Parts: sequence; structure tokens; C-alpha cells
Amino acid sequence: MLKGIDPRLNPELLHVLAAMGHGDDLVICDTNFPADSVARQTVWGRPLRIDGADSATAVAAVLSLFPLDSFVDSPVSRMEVVGEPDTVTEVQREVQQAVDAAEGAPTPIASIERFAFYEAAKKAYAVLVTGELRFYGCFILKKGVIPPPAS
Amino acid sequence: MLKGIDPRLNPELLHVLAAMGHGDDLVICDTNFPADSVARQTVWGRPLRIDGADSATAVAAVLSLFPLDSFVDSPVSRMEVVGEPDTVTEVQREVQQAVDAAEGAPTPIASIERFAFYEAAKKAYAVLVTGELRFYGCFILKKGVIPPPAS
Amino acid sequence: MLKGIDPRLNPELLHVLAAMGHGDDLVICDTNFPADSVARQTVWGRPLRIDGADSATAVAAVLSLFPLDSFVDSPVSRMEVVGEPDTVTEVQREVQQAVDAAEGAPTPIASIERFAFYEAAKKAYAVLVTGELRFYGCFILKKGVIPPPAS
Amino acid sequence: MLKGIDPRLNPELLHVLAAMGHGDDLVICDTNFPADSVARQTVWGRPLRIDGADSATAVAAVLSLFPLDSFVDSPVSRMEVVGEPDTVTEVQREVQQAVDAAEGAPTPIASIERFAFYEAAKKAYAVLVTGELRFYGCFILKKGVIPPPAS
Amino acid sequence: MLKGIDPRLNPELLHVLAAMGHGDDLVICDTNFPADSVARQTVWGRPLRIDGADSATAVAAVLSLFPLDSFVDSPVSRMEVVGEPDTVTEVQREVQQAVDAAEGAPTPIASIERFAFYEAAKKAYAVLVTGELRFYGCFILKKGVIPPPAS
Amino acid sequence: MLKGIDPRLNPELLHVLAAMGHGDDLVICDTNFPADSVARQTVWGRPLRIDGADSATAVAAVLSLFPLDSFVDSPVSRMEVVGEPDTVTEVQREVQQAVDAAEGAPTPIASIERFAFYEAAKKAYAVLVTGELRFYGCFILKKGVIPPPAS
Amino acid sequence: MLKGIDPRLNPELLHVLAAMGHGDDLVICDTNFPADSVARQTVWGRPLRIDGADSATAVAAVLSLFPLDSFVDSPVSRMEVVGEPDTVTEVQREVQQAVDAAEGAPTPIASIERFAFYEAAKKAYAVLVTGELRFYGCFILKKGVIPPPAS
Amino acid sequence: MLKGIDPRLNPELLHVLAAMGHGDDLVICDTNFPADSVARQTVWGRPLRIDGADSATAVAAVLSLFPLDSFVDSPVSRMEVVGEPDTVTEVQREVQQAVDAAEGAPTPIASIERFAFYEAAKKAYAVLVTGELRFYGCFILKKGVIPPPAS
Amino acid sequence: MLKGIDPRLNPELLHVLAAMGHGDDLVICDTNFPADSVARQTVWGRPLRIDGADSATAVAAVLSLFPLDSFVDSPVSRMEVVGEPDTVTEVQREVQQAVDAAEGAPTPIASIERFAFYEAAKKAYAVLVTGELRFYGCFILKKGVIPPPAS
Amino acid sequence: MLKGIDPRLNPELLHVLAAMGHGDDLVICDTNFPADSVARQTVWGRPLRIDGADSATAVAAVLSLFPLDSFVDSPVSRMEVVGEPDTVTEVQREVQQAVDAAEGAPTPIASIERFAFYEAAKKAYAVLVTGELRFYGCFILKKGVIPPPAS
Repeated sequence: MLKGIDPRLNPELLHVLAAMGHGDDLVICDTNFPADSVARQTVWGRPLRIDGADSATAVAAVLSLFPLDSFVDSPVSRMEVVGEPDTVTEVQREVQQAVDAAEGAPTPIASIERFAFYEAAKKAYAVLVTGELRFYGCFILKKGVIPPPAS
Repeated sequence: MLKGIDPRLNPELLHVLAAMGHGDDLVICDTNFPADSVARQTVWGRPLRIDGADSATAVAAVLSLFPLDSFVDSPVSRMEVVGEPDTVTEVQREVQQAVDAAEGAPTPIASIERFAFYEAAKKAYAVLVTGELRFYGCFILKKGVIPPPAS
Repeated sequence: MLKGIDPRLNPELLHVLAAMGHGDDLVICDTNFPADSVARQTVWGRPLRIDGADSATAVAAVLSLFPLDSFVDSPVSRMEVVGEPDTVTEVQREVQQAVDAAEGAPTPIASIERFAFYEAAKKAYAVLVTGELRFYGCFILKKGVIPPPAS
Repeated sequence: MLKGIDPRLNPELLHVLAAMGHGDDLVICDTNFPADSVARQTVWGRPLRIDGADSATAVAAVLSLFPLDSFVDSPVSRMEVVGEPDTVTEVQREVQQAVDAAEGAPTPIASIERFAFYEAAKKAYAVLVTGELRFYGCFILKKGVIPPPAS
Repeated sequence: MLKGIDPRLNPELLHVLAAMGHGDDLVICDTNFPADSVARQTVWGRPLRIDGADSATAVAAVLSLFPLDSFVDSPVSRMEVVGEPDTVTEVQREVQQAVDAAEGAPTPIASIERFAFYEAAKKAYAVLVTGELRFYGCFILKKGVIPPPAS
Repeated sequence: MLKGIDPRLNPELLHVLAAMGHGDDLVICDTNFPADSVARQTVWGRPLRIDGADSATAVAAVLSLFPLDSFVDSPVSRMEVVGEPDTVTEVQREVQQAVDAAEGAPTPIASIERFAFYEAAKKAYAVLVTGELRFYGCFILKKGVIPPPAS
Repeated sequence: MLKGIDPRLNPELLHVLAAMGHGDDLVICDTNFPADSVARQTVWGRPLRIDGADSATAVAAVLSLFPLDSFVDSPVSRMEVVGEPDTVTEVQREVQQAVDAAEGAPTPIASIERFAFYEAAKKAYAVLVTGELRFYGCFILKKGVIPPPAS
Repeated sequence: MLKGIDPRLNPELLHVLAAMGHGDDLVICDTNFPADSVARQTVWGRPLRIDGADSATAVAAVLSLFPLDSFVDSPVSRMEVVGEPDTVTEVQREVQQAVDAAEGAPTPIASIERFAFYEAAKKAYAVLVTGELRFYGCFILKKGVIPPPAS
Repeated sequence: MLKGIDPRLNPELLHVLAAMGHGDDLVICDTNFPADSVARQTVWGRPLRIDGADSATAVAAVLSLFPLDSFVDSPVSRMEVVGEPDTVTEVQREVQQAVDAAEGAPTPIASIERFAFYEAAKKAYAVLVTGELRFYGCFILKKGVIPPPAS
Repeated sequence: MLKGIDPRLNPELLHVLAAMGHGDDLVICDTNFPADSVARQTVWGRPLRIDGADSATAVAAVLSLFPLDSFVDSPVSRMEVVGEPDTVTEVQREVQQAVDAAEGAPTPIASIERFAFYEAAKKAYAVLVTGELRFYGCFILKKGVIPPPAS
């Protein structure tokens, strides 16, 4: 427990969020995602867990500390429903709201086909498993930068 | 995700619950407990987490699979409020209810003074950190046996 | 030992079954299969054992917890008899029955040529060695999903 | 699989049986025994498993290769029923038969009180967990010597 | 780099601060302290570094996140000047100011004789080496608790 | 030491022989072979030793437990004398005799050119170094299967 | 602390600087650089830190011990501002001064496009993270040789 | 294979013999000795093997490189026959001859009771297992010094 | 190779010298000393080597960077000749000269009996083996402090 | 220290020399060579050191035990002076003499261009760093065989 830090951000997760740099990706996924087999190919090498939170709560907790990348068009992506690339599920709408709230501006989430998502996820820095039980609660967030204090 | 298993019981936690045997102790603690320094002295050697659950929810999830020891008077213990050994806090009353419900009978929780609790916890098999934010949400559960099927 | 869990599912095996996600493969093999050399190339990296069970008993124990994938035509495959792709051995018939019983519906097992089976097995999440002494007691099971509880 | 070796003796178990020397102890236990916490204090450091065998079958398989110590009065011991030191359970009678058959002569099993058994077990070379579901299926076997071939 | 976190708190240090619990001690020391030999006996096992800060800056950065223990008389201690237990050095006065500022109230620092300090330091959770070049810039901080949000 | 097992088959070697499965290769080599650099690329990853035996004695000891593969034309191969592919050395004749004796039938040894032998050896399960001092005492044995007991 | 060595050069960093040889590269970067994911691909395998120094101070401390390569045109390179290859930022001017001062002669810094810089950095010997908060404080230094003493 | 070095002295054994210093003990034992459980408590931590040699051959090979300690009365000790402290077995006479031959002078071997031998062996630098099949082929050799070349 | 650093101080040795702090001990020994068994009990855990230097050269190289402790009477100690505590050997006189030269003042070396020296050495931070072939070339150096720059 | 072994051949180096086999390469290099980054790609994986010897002394010590390969034209190679492939430096002439002396016959050293030398070095078994301060003191030695004793 630390002053002013969401208690859901456990010690190893804080370590990961701080160790990531500009352009590194974080996967935040639901409970059916093959998190362990994917995470072993990421930089961190094992999944992180935030078992008692749905995807939007986890995304909001992460974004309380984590800057999104402003160098790319879409710093957040979602896994597409198989065969329905344009469907946006309830979980995905909740995460869109959490992202917009954290950024203070509309920040549209891009979409990635299921198997392309798996390939992108293996190149990420780490995988964070939530307690989200609903399907398609899987996202990739790209880390941005913190500018120096104005002189 | 497995059929009929509470999704809060993550893979490493399932491993631990199954690897424990008759008489092994499991510590279930709140977010202020020195879980990491204590857990490094236990058999398992590092803390397990179930971040998004309060103590009673975590105890109930564990007891859905974990038999309590019937060879001892009190298979569950709580950390005493410092200086008030007889006070039973709200968290502790909730856990008493979860234990009674799991056992199907009143199963009074014993109490242990704070520093004696730390010493007992270091001898446990593992430490499970919950997301419990309230003080004194710390318990020790002693594992029992599963009898052979009746012939 | 845990309440309601088949005791043949040992702690490390429970860990593996829970850590697998949608689309991950589990190899269940007989005693002549090169389990160790194959398993070292899988995600888990070492073989798991359930020494005292034949292939069908092991498959049934696993399927008591493990959902099969409904996104693919054949979530279970068998190793073909060398030179006789259409032969279905006694072991394979027993496993077909165990699969059908677990799924509650006919779920035909697909077949894979011996060396193609080895290559597929190396890409699996883990290898589970049974005590099956008969030849061709080797199978691959693809994990499916658990839907969220109906609201 | 090796010529003439019981297939229940898996590779790691063969390694252990061969690596043990004169006076080293092997614990063979039932499924409720705290095998993991005890085994971590033994020489080998982690439990071995022979999941699909009851205690007597496991003891017989081990004794097909493992000489018992002839320098001590009782090379085999059993865990006493709590509070009934003279009770010999069905499992224990089966194991007595397996020992006598392997040795070709009556070889009475000694008894050890439960907590003294735990302490003795921690000093053993290794712990072998069987699939024995009945209580008190826990034994300690002391390894003997193989004499040189007669010249 | 994370939003609102002092960049001097590097990823491993954040991990440590969050993993510590009620009553765990953190050593913050100068560049002449035997940090490596002491840290190897602590819970964390290797020293952490914040090379470019003097002791008071490091203490202030840590206390921006780390609650001090309110269950003890003196949650912060300093190493005594050898042979001059009552001398308070410039570094120690600066740290006293940093502590008082963080706590918002006078919080007197206790003193410990040099070799007793070494013994206490070995029992800590971790050692943080600063870039402090002046002698006697060595302190022990005991972690406190974060109360639950008011309901 | 185990009943009925050749004492030259040390504990780690027994482990390896049992862990190998159908189609896995074992390299048995002389003292000049680059055993360590080759073995690090095999499945087992480090050489095994049976220092006090010539190649034929080692092959005979291994074949007392190890079935040869009956699915291939030549389950045993030898390293060719450089520039003299048809020369069969004394060591190689002795090993041919040991193989024939173990199999109970003529089982001609195939030959492989020196550098091709190195490449094949790197793909093996393990390398066993003997005490053979004569040149070209290097062989590859492919493991076969043990059929189930006749019902 | 060692006689005559800048205290900012901590023990692990001294180890790295000395272990590097002719032609090995050292990355010195700012706090937004993805130092951890890049460093895991370098020879050393984890980032080094010199948290309390800006890029020019860190470069100067390193060059107090580290010879630059005289076999190449530009032994030091900088990361280009995205889209502005010719812009030289304030940080980069400060580092140019530190390099010139260390070498005792103008030693122009070359420039590398951002993603090419990432690829070059992964091939380096190690990554040193500074406390530089300004953007584009990222450099690569190639190690040179120390000539033998004149006879 | 090295010029002039007995090929029975394998690479790890050469490493051990060279790494030992004045006063370090080497255990050389027969095949029934509990070599693995004892060796894990020695400095080296795992047994070394010279499988195809009896005790006297192994002692002679070791003493071709290893100086015995001249600061103690008996640099070599043997395990006593249980209950017959004065009996000197055939193996022990052979080793006495090997020692005398290596030293070029009678060097009487001291004796140690069986369980005292085990305790002494655990304090040794390493344990070397021979292929000696006869009982009581267990010895401890204390390393001496090599004097500087005469000036 | 680094500017101005004695090339005999290899990378791991530089690391050790810098990681040591006030009061930590460094053992510098001759080639007959049991360096490996002693070093495994020190903080660093394995011996360091500076093979091609006699004891005085090694001491001089170390003292070019390493401050001696001014808080104790004798920051350097030597191993006594067995039975002749007052004898000072040639090696010891050479080292006395190297110490005096490094300190710029007579700094008498204390003496420690052989077995007491071994015990003291095990409590050191590290052991550095030199190429010294003469007997009794064994010393312990206690590290001192570097004062802050005068303001 | 061992009888008749050059004390410069330290324990780990003896291990390496003995573990190498026919055709394995050993790199012997000067102090400016990038020994650590190259050695991490070799079989052994970390550099060996013989700090106090120039290249010719190190080569002579190695060749006192190490047979050169007689199956190839040039069992020893040197790194070419950049841009001057025919120049043979003083160090290289000294090493040529050491090689000729060890072999008892002229054994011309071949030459390899600098970057080709780096690539060849990465494929070697190990890298041995000497204390050679002069440039171009870098060589590759290919190990040969020891013939069996004449019968």
C-alpha cells in the first residue's frame, strides 16, 4: 500500500508500468485469453494478474499512472469479434469510456483481427490478466512519454 | 478458466491449495500485512494474490475447494486487534460467517496476538494477499483431509 | 486433495489446466511417446505425469475441468497408426467414448500422421504422460472457453 | 519405458532410487500427507509422484529394485493411527504383505507416532506420493546394500 | 516514467516500496555504508540505488509514497556518530526536516549505535543506497499503514 | 545400487534412458569426441559419463535396458573413418557384436560421415561419454518401443 | 567508493565499463527511452542506472574511464528528433561539449533515425539509464582501445 | 583428453582437484555409500563419478596430481568395518598400497567409525564415487601443499 | 581496459572493490590457500583471481583504489607461520612495504593464527587468489571510507 | 595447485581444456579484445582469465596440456592487423615460437581478417583473456586428439 496509488496496482505491476518506456505495449486481457502462453513470449515473460477487476476497471487503474502514446494514431487496440470486425461489445464500450476519461478527450480504439492480435500481443512488454469474464475483453495499450517540467 | 472452479482461484493458487496437505497452514491477509517479507519464509516462498476480493470473499472462494482440519479445536485463527484481544472487527465477523457457511456448522475462529501471528504465519505453507483494505483482515486456515470414498 | 476434484489431477497439472487459455493445446500420450524431448519444446517445458491411468481415464479426468474448443471443427486429434491412417485402435475408441461422454454429444476425433503429430505436439502448451501401455494412445486436446454467467 | 522395469517407476523416480545409498530413507505416502511441505526439507527437495497406485502397489514396485537395510531391526516403518498406536489398518496390512513378499521372509513394520513421523520424514532422501486415498498409508523405507558378486 | 511519480523512484524501488508492509524496515544509506554485504541479508537481498540524490532528497522521494509507522515511538532512526551519540550532523538535520515535512508534524528521529545499526539493518526489508557523500547519512524507516477509505 | 541393474548405469544415466521415447537418439562416444560442445545442443544439455568402460561395454550396459527402434532400417550408426567410409575399426566390430548379442539377431550398423555425424549428434536426446581411448568409438542408438503385455 | 573514481559510477557500471572491449557499444539514454525492453536484448541483459544525473553528466562520468573508438568516423551517435534529422537539441549540445572535453578535440556526434536507433541499441553491450527528463537524451558510445605503455 | 593426464580424471574432477586447497578433504567412496545425500552437504554440492574404477585405481589416479597434507599425522582415513575397528579389508589394503606408492613412503591410513565417517564426509570439499562394488571402500584424503620452486 | 586503472584489476574485481563498504574485509591469498571452500562462505560467494601476480603486486594494485580503514588499529592482517607467530616471511615483508607505500606511512600488519585466519576469512566480503607460490602469502584488508570533498 | 600442472592454469581453465574435444576452438586474446561479448556466444558462455601472462606465456601454458589438431592445415590462427594482412607483429612472432616449441616442429600460424576473426571466435568453445597489453595478441587454437596407448 502506497499513498495515492490504487491498491489494485500490485508491486510487480507497478514495477512493470514503470519499467516500460516509449512505444512499449501492455496487453490487458480477459480470463479466457491464452495469457500464460502469450506472456512467456513477451519481454516480462510471465503474466501479471489483477484478478478482481473487470477490463474497464483495470484499464482505468493502469491509466491513472500510465501515459498513452501520442506519436501514433491509436494508442489503444481491441480484439475483433471473430467474423464481425465492426461489432463493438459492451466490454469494449466500457473500456472506450475509461480511455476517454483518462485522456480527457475522445481517443478512438482501433481493432485487430483475433490471430493478428495474438501475434501483436507476443511482441508486447507484458500481459495483464483481469477478472473480466465476458468475451473479447482484450486490449493493447502503447506507452507514451512524460514531458520534462516546464522550466 | 475451468469448469466449476471459481475464476478468482488463479492457476498458481490452485497449485498451492492442491499441494498443501494435512496440517499445512494458509495465511489469508489484508493489504497492509507485511505479506512479502512473511511469505519468503513460508514453504511456497512468495505471496499469492487475489487482488480484487475482500477477506470474506477470498476465504469463501478458498473453502469451496479446501477442507478444514477436524483434528484441531480451531482450524481458523484471526489476528487480534492490538491491545483489544476480545474485539471482533467487521471483517472478522464476515469471515466467521463465510467459514460457518462453508463448514455447514458453527466453527469458532480462534485469536492470536499480532506478533505471535507473524511468527505463526512464517511457518505456514503460503500467504494469500487479498484486496481487503480494512485493518485486521488477517487469518490462518489449517488444511484437513478428504476421506476415501465409501466402499 | 481438494473437494470435488479428481485426485489424479495433481497440483502441477491443475496449475497447467488453469493456466491454459483459448486455443492452447494439451498433449495426452502413452508411455512410449518421446514425451520429454517433445515437452521441452512446449510452453510449459517439462512433461506432466499421471502414471497410473490409461489414456481414456486420463482424458476423462482432464475433461472433468477442461472445456474443449468450439471454434474449430475437431478439438481433439489422435496419432495415426503408421501406414494405416484409417485404423482406429482400441485405445482410440475408448478415448472417443470419454470425449463424447464429457461433451454430451458426438465429437469426432481427427487424425494426424505420426511425424506431423510430433510437430504439432511441440507447439502445444504441455504434454501429459499417462500410464497407457498400448501403442497409439496419443492425443491433442484444444482448450475452449467458459462463457460468462448469464446476467 | 525400459526392458524389465516396472513402468510405474518413472524417470525421476528411477534416478532417486539409484542415487540413494546405504541408510538413506524413502517416504511413501498417501494423498492427504503434507508431501510438498515435507519433501522440500528432504535431500531431493520436491515430491515424486506415482499417482495411480495404492500404497502397497507402490511399495512393491519400489522394492522390485530397492534393497532394504539389513543393518537395522526394522527397515520399514508406518505412521501410527492417532491415539491408537497398536491399530494396524487395512492399508498397512497390505504393505506388510508387499514387504514380506519382496524380502521373501517376514519383515515386521515398526510404528512411529504422527508428529514424530513428520520429523523423521523431513530427514529422508525423498518423498514419493502415491494415489492411496485411504488414511494412514504412510511409510518410511531405509535403503540397504547390494553385495559384490561372489568371486 | 509514470504520471505523478518522482522519476528518482525507479521501477525496482517502486516494487520494493509497494511490497513492504506494516512494520517492515527500509534502510537509506550513504556511499560509504557496507550496503552490499548488509543488503544480502535483508529480505530483498540486493541493494537498490538512487545514485544521484543526497540522503534528504532520497528520504523525501520515498516519503512521497511511503507511510511511516504510527504504532511505534520513532518510525525513523539514524546511525550515531562513533563516540558521540548526541551529535546530530548536517545530513541528519536535513533528513529530520524532510521527515517533518512529509509527516506534517515534528517526528523526532531516534539514534542507534554504529554496530547495532548494522545488525538492525540486516533485518530490514531492503537497503537503498543514495549518492550522499557525507558521513553518517544512514537511516532506517519503518513502514506504516494506509487506512481504508472512510465509508 | 539397485537390484539387477548394471552398476555402470549411474542415476542420471538411468533417468535419461527412461526419459527417452520412441525415436529419440543416444550418442555413445569415445574420449576424443567433442562431447561437451555437442551435448549442450542436445535435449538433455550436458554430457553423461561412464568413464571406466570401453565403447562395447557401454553399449552392452545400455542395451540391457534400452530397446532399439524396429521402425527404421538401422537403429545404430557409427562415425566413418575420415576418408575411408568402408573401413570398420576394431572398436566398431566389438560394438557390432554387442548390438547383435543384445538384439539376438544380426543388426547391421550404418555409417555416417564425420561432420554429418556431428550434426546428427546435436539433434540427439543425450551424449554418453565412455572411457574408450581408441579412435572412432562413436555411435548413435535410436530408441524403440516396449509393447504392452499380451492380454 | 574508490580512490579517484567518480562515485556516480556504481559497482555494476564499473564492471560493465571494464568488461566491454574494442568495438562494443554503450547506450546512454533518457528516462522515456524503452530501456528495459531494449536492454534485455543487449549483451548485459538488464539496464544499468545512474538515476540522478542528466545525460551530459553521465557521459562525462563514463568518459572519465572509457576510451572512445578511434577506428571509426563517429564513435558517438545521437537519436534524431522524429521528422527533424538536422535539429540538435539542448541536451545533445551539452553532450557534444562533454564528448569534446573528454577527448580534448572536436569529436562530432553522428545521428541515427529513431527506429534505427532502437535496432542499433539492441545490439549494444549495455544500456545505461540516466535521470535526464528532457526528450532525445539518447546516445550510443563505441569503446576504443588503451595502447600498451611505451617501452 | 589432455597430454599426460589420466583420462579417468574427467573435466569436472580436474576442476575440483585444482580448486581444493590446503586442508580440504576429498571423499572417495564405493557404490553403496550414500554419496548423493552426503555430497549435497559438501562444498562442491554434488557427487563426482569415476564409474569404471575400483577404489585403489581411483585413489592412484587422484594422487597422480593431488598432494597429501604433511601437516597432519594421517592425511588418509578409511571407514571402519561396523563392530570390527581393527579389521582391514582387501579394498583397504589395496588403497594402502596405492597411497604408499604415490607418497614413496609408508603412509598409514587412520580409521573412523561408520557414523563419524558420515559426519566427517559432510564437511569435505567433495565426494568422488568409484565403481568399487566391495564393502568399506570409503576413504577421506586431505590435500596438502605444493612448495614454491627452489630459487 | 579503462583509463588509468591497473589492467590487473579485472571487471569482476573492480565490481567487488567498489561494492565493498566501510568495515568489509578482503582476503588476498596465495595459491595453496583453500580459496574456493573459504570463498563460498563469504559475501561474494566465489573466489576472484589475479593469477599472474605475487601477493605484494596484488596488494599494491588493490590499494591503488581501495582505502584502508582508519577506525581500527590494524587494517591489514597476515596469516602466522604455524608454530612461529613472530616469524615474518619474505612475502609478508614485501606486502608490508606495499601497504606502507600505499598509505604513505608505516602501517604495521597484525598477525592471526592459521585456523583463526580461516574463520576470519569466511566472514570476509570476498577472497582474491593471487599467483603467489610462496607459503604464507595470505592477508586480510579492511576497507575504509572516502571523505566527502571539502566544501 | 596440482603436481606438475602450471599454476597459471586455474581450476575453471583446466575444466575447459579437458572438456574440449576434437575440433573445438579456444580463443586466447589480449586485454583490448571484446572478450566478454564474444565469450557469451561461445559454448562455455563466459570468459576465462589468466590475467598476469602475455599471450605467448599463456599459449605455452595451454599447450603444455592441449594437443593441436593434426587434421587441418593450420591449427592456430592470428587476428590480422587492420589493413596490413601480411604484417606479423612482435606478439605474433612470440606466439609462433611458443607454438613451434610446443609442437616440436614448425607449425605456421594462419591469419584471419579482424571481423572474420570475431565471427570465428563466437563459434569457439571458450575465450581466454590474457594480460597481454600489446595490440593484436589474439589467436584461435583448434584442439586435436590424444592417440590410444600403443598396445
